[in-house]
Amino acid sequence: MTISVDGYVAGPVQTREDPIGEGHRLHQWMFHADEPGHEMDVRLREEIVAGRGAFIMGRNMYGPIRGEWGDEDWRGWWGEEPPYHAPVFVLTHYPHDPIEMKGGTTFHFVTEGFDAAFSQAQAVAGDAPIDIAGGASTVQQAFAAGVIDELLLDVSPILLGAGEALFKGVADPGLTPVEVVASPLATHVRYRVGR
Amino acid sequence: MTISVDGYVAGPVQTREDPIGEGHRLHQWMFHADEPGHEMDVRLREEIVAGRGAFIMGRNMYGPIRGEWGDEDWRGWWGEEPPYHAPVFVLTHYPHDPIEMKGGTTFHFVTEGFDAAFSQAQAVAGDAPIDIAGGASTVQQAFAAGVIDELLLDVSPILLGAGEALFKGVADPGLTPVEVVASPLATHVRYRVGR
Repeated sequence: MTISVDGYVAGPVQTREDPIGEGHRLHQWMFHADEPGHEMDVRLREEIVAGRGAFIMGRNMYGPIRGEWGDEDWRGWWGEEPPYHAPVFVLTHYPHDPIEMKGGTTFHFVTEGFDAAFSQAQAVAGDAPIDIAGGASTVQQAFAAGVIDELLLDVSPILLGAGEALFKGVADPGLTPVEVVASPLATHVRYRVGR
Repeated sequence: MTISVDGYVAGPVQTREDPIGEGHRLHQWMFHADEPGHEMDVRLREEIVAGRGAFIMGRNMYGPIRGEWGDEDWRGWWGEEPPYHAPVFVLTHYPHDPIEMKGGTTFHFVTEGFDAAFSQAQAVAGDAPIDIAGGASTVQQAFAAGVIDELLLDVSPILLGAGEALFKGVADPGLTPVEVVASPLATHVRYRVGR
């Protein structure tokens, strides 16, 4: 998860053009990962989607539509070939048929809650890891379900001041930092989770 | 500043025995800095007090007494020879005579606010850096005064869930990470402050 120094994964003012509120500032390390001197960012950007068996994400991460899906043919933020290359289970209260994209990504819409999405993800992932892609609420549900083994925080050097606090309501799961790599645009800290 | 992963410098339950609320967990990297494998922690522990011209701290960091000072001969948490070895300006609403300790530390009590403390610190520090020792409120006042050039965060791998948020009300001052060192007990990130 990309997070500000003050602990937010999205700013307070979210619009359709800027769905995570100052998202561009927060995710600079991803957008600029190809520039010289940011090889750590390149490595992390590739690593966070490589070799995953499945992904779980919240509906607000999938798109800007709220409530009923309506007539719009929304297919995610990521173009015709999303970077996931694996099934993505989207948590929503509103049923929707699966959407198959290029490159192995299929969006499945799960209305029965996090545990159901996790079971479905497990069924397709086999031995490959399942990635909780975000946002904050989905991560919080995953912590509450006790299914997180590893937490990768990409700390962007900005203060958002308000917004969606990643760890709101999360009980300390036991964190051990096992790897830290840094660039001018982010400090990437990998934690093993569990006591 | 030692800070939890979720951004707190003190937990929600502060007592005289545990004045920063789970302080022992938060400051493990300091207490265990002498153990094998923690050479980064040793280095940081020494560096944060070495060569400073003066320190500024809030009254709650100096001691557990609230309101009038009363009759107790409180002389700080740090024994007869505190690790500061320089003048320490303590922000308080209640006047108190200076207290001279061994090893060059003298506690001066400033009732006229942060700017007055900073001026007094500048007068004695000469060209040596002034350290804002904490807690959260004092750091917030220093950010508001625009006098912070560098921020060193020692991120402890714990979630406190509530408490004193270091960056509450702090406008983004422009942060650039310039150094990251890590141990199993803390990730130390040094930021240059300013645009």
